[in-house]
Amino acid sequence: MTIPMDDRGLTLGDGLFETVLAVGRDLVLWNEHVARLQRGSVALGLPTPAPDELLTAARTALEEAGLKDARAAVRLTWTAGSGGRGLDRPAPMTGRLYAVAAPAPESDQMARLAMATIRRNPASPTSRFKTLSYVDNVLARAEARAAGADEALLLNTSGELACAAAANLFWAEGEALYTPRLDCGVLDGVVRDMIVGQAGVAEVRAWPACLERATAVYLTNSLIGVREAVSLDARPLSRDGVMLARLRAIVAGAPRC
Amino acid sequence: MTIPMDDRGLTLGDGLFETVLAVGRDLVLWNEHVARLQRGSVALGLPTPAPDELLTAARTALEEAGLKDARAAVRLTWTAGSGGRGLDRPAPMTGRLYAVAAPAPESDQMARLAMATIRRNPASPTSRFKTLSYVDNVLARAEARAAGADEALLLNTSGELACAAAANLFWAEGEALYTPRLDCGVLDGVVRDMIVGQAGVAEVRAWPACLERATAVYLTNSLIGVREAVSLDARPLSRDGVMLARLRAIVAGAPRC
Repeated sequence: MTIPMDDRGLTLGDGLFETVLAVGRDLVLWNEHVARLQRGSVALGLPTPAPDELLTAARTALEEAGLKDARAAVRLTWTAGSGGRGLDRPAPMTGRLYAVAAPAPESDQMARLAMATIRRNPASPTSRFKTLSYVDNVLARAEARAAGADEALLLNTSGELACAAAANLFWAEGEALYTPRLDCGVLDGVVRDMIVGQAGVAEVRAWPACLERATAVYLTNSLIGVREAVSLDARPLSRDGVMLARLRAIVAGAPRC
Repeated sequence: MTIPMDDRGLTLGDGLFETVLAVGRDLVLWNEHVARLQRGSVALGLPTPAPDELLTAARTALEEAGLKDARAAVRLTWTAGSGGRGLDRPAPMTGRLYAVAAPAPESDQMARLAMATIRRNPASPTSRFKTLSYVDNVLARAEARAAGADEALLLNTSGELACAAAANLFWAEGEALYTPRLDCGVLDGVVRDMIVGQAGVAEVRAWPACLERATAVYLTNSLIGVREAVSLDARPLSRDGVMLARLRAIVAGAPRC
């Protein structure tokens, strides 16, 4: 399984990806993933992938990996295709699609967070999408691991809360739920969007001090669902099992394809 | 010429590249390119590439492309190698190196600049290096082309001057030369470094208004050498042919390997 060396996804990070949870033969939040990949393609000026080709690629990857009856992560990669030297894209561009499947991580774990030194850039549209230019996220995660944590929490360049290296951020103050606004440099997560729509979440600009007075802090993404954050830089965070169960129930009701 | 689909350079932009000018059989500023690639590898936590392997790869690429007696661009790509699902790097990492050569662009052209809407992120170490996560540069260039310009000028998230999508920025006020400081989110360019060292350049924090009172504005990189910027957002910039000749003479004296 190889791709040409002149693929712009490789040479310049010029492309997008999606990570979709598969449970048995079902693809969870499939339409939402496809819609985000298409929105991202428009935002980045890439060709738009065809939904039926995406579905065929995802199902084929699951079968080839022998994972079609297990809990799996299907990754779709959509690149700007082959191109010549330099930044300028070829005209016309022909996108390149491929999909791979792997076992999915457990969903019921907890996360120890570490504050990253790298910050997210709200002044780039790429901060909202899962682009192939993801090295900042890689470095933030590595920094968190080196500090004995599981995941990195990133602020934006103004010092406001944004999201984790590979997850969105929510916090509770009693019954009230909050998450950073997308224009804070936040990934436009499909699980984030579902929870915002169903749980009455306020999208806000907020500083890290908000997490100190929070009654619970959560991470969300397609593979982990809702994960409880139990500490930040080794200081314990408050927890709320009732709220956790409420959010997990919302995610458990996610539509499947 | 292919690479494995699980290469982290492709999946996450986890790697670095160098673009080296070859004139005849000579590699211009070779040691400086190797040193930057090694500094970048340390900064990103990647394995460090061996200089002799880099040189062999570059010379082989030139020969394979049939460009060994022409003016050529040799691109070295150094990735974090193959890895599994997710952001976490494998332990140990085995870097993957490849090189390709192509004809180099002309060096004596002029550039029409357009101010980009995307801004550079000084709060990421990746802003100083040529990483495989380069989609912001791709998008800024595309935006400039759409505006009828040749190259994008980028500010950082604080609104200070940084650099172009694929070049560093200098400006003159009479005999005095200026360039943005590296901690403004600026690529640590090898030609930039040479000019700063030899032309008595002040490295400063500066606002875009500085370019309005400049007596000349220049772009530099390994392939173009020194290029005169003649306009910004379609407004003419002042020009100074004597200063241009002085800077080009410095670059013409660059060491070769």
